[in-house]
Amino acid sequence: MSVYERLEALNIALPKLTPPVAAFVPFLRSGNLIFLAGHIAKLDGQPWVGQLGANLTTEQGKNAARAVAIDLMGTLHAAVGDLNQIKRILKLMVLVNSTPAYTEQHLVANGASEFFAEIFGEIGMHVRCAFGVAQIPFGACVEIDLIAEVDDK
Amino acid sequence: MSVYERLEALNIALPKLTPPVAAFVPFLRSGNLIFLAGHIAKLDGQPWVGQLGANLTTEQGKNAARAVAIDLMGTLHAAVGDLNQIKRILKLMVLVNSTPAYTEQHLVANGASEFFAEIFGEIGMHVRCAFGVAQIPFGACVEIDLIAEVDDK
Amino acid sequence: MSVYERLEALNIALPKLTPPVAAFVPFLRSGNLIFLAGHIAKLDGQPWVGQLGANLTTEQGKNAARAVAIDLMGTLHAAVGDLNQIKRILKLMVLVNSTPAYTEQHLVANGASEFFAEIFGEIGMHVRCAFGVAQIPFGACVEIDLIAEVDDK
Repeated sequence: MSVYERLEALNIALPKLTPPVAAFVPFLRSGNLIFLAGHIAKLDGQPWVGQLGANLTTEQGKNAARAVAIDLMGTLHAAVGDLNQIKRILKLMVLVNSTPAYTEQHLVANGASEFFAEIFGEIGMHVRCAFGVAQIPFGACVEIDLIAEVDDK
Repeated sequence: MSVYERLEALNIALPKLTPPVAAFVPFLRSGNLIFLAGHIAKLDGQPWVGQLGANLTTEQGKNAARAVAIDLMGTLHAAVGDLNQIKRILKLMVLVNSTPAYTEQHLVANGASEFFAEIFGEIGMHVRCAFGVAQIPFGACVEIDLIAEVDDK
Repeated sequence: MSVYERLEALNIALPKLTPPVAAFVPFLRSGNLIFLAGHIAKLDGQPWVGQLGANLTTEQGKNAARAVAIDLMGTLHAAVGDLNQIKRILKLMVLVNSTPAYTEQHLVANGASEFFAEIFGEIGMHVRCAFGVAQIPFGACVEIDLIAEVDDK
């Protein structure tokens, strides 16, 4: 199965690229590396507002992280044109909007990590850094940035 | 106009490189990538102390982010010798010292992003990750690190 | 002295690679870059729990950062097979579990930075970004991720 067939089997439609709301770009390529801007969690097209430890459960946070991963996949598709050219999802940085007492950022981050592994298989297995931040733009509950590697051409 | 002419037109003097106060270096090159250490905001040569949501406005935070961008530009100049050799500002990570209720980190970060776009044009347009942190060394209000790409030689 | 002789002179045994507790991998290579996942501080094999500014001193935080650096070195060894092939420790991102009032993240981070300089000399001198985060998985006091460069082959 190709990446697109797996997405379709899961009934996932990749979102269209939305222009950043500020003075930056959604992706850039340098050599074989693709850098994606930080993507915040969205629900029905609006920032997915909330804080883990306050008003969101770990399960909700995990779903939010998965939603971000789907948006990142949409941006990756826009960046490379064909997701089958991705050689490796290299690195995720997963920021979890957290109270000072919430310590399950790794479980929240799994919502994104497991999605990439599910869609890409071995190629989707990445290194990761997940931690709790004081806040995220627009009050979103999760923000993720990503580095991927593409094949030489 | 060259990068230096634009800086002069804005009456901006690049700071001299200041040695890190700890056991690390201000920049490193690997292949075509230049990695800059995290730079904290300074005011009159001292840490620009404050927290967004507590004792600094978004406009003040944006000015602080612009000040960091000028310092980063000074370090980039020291790293490459000639800023016109910069091929692309690739990525900023913008850390905003934030209370748990402050959610305008993206507006603060624009102070840096808009500066790079202003000086470098298209080459200055980067991917970005901005978020709120619990604290920053010396109590500074903003910290930014940067990755740039230089031309092959 | 080789890297391994310096480690032995300091009576440091590199830990065996421990598999991540979540859906990611501990290291990946892309071109000449090695990306390491975020490593949390451990004490006697368990998460080194605590928060700077609350229940840990700067000196304790610095020791925790040094412990993370030793674990990162173990992972680097697993990644490259021979630490003498490391061309440069490029970058550390040092996350310090901090109260909103704690501002000595740079001193905590020195525990890791000084270790890499001690073991690798000039090659161990890196760029660094250190800051205070709201929380870290499992309540750990410090988390660090790392990018290193290896020689062409």
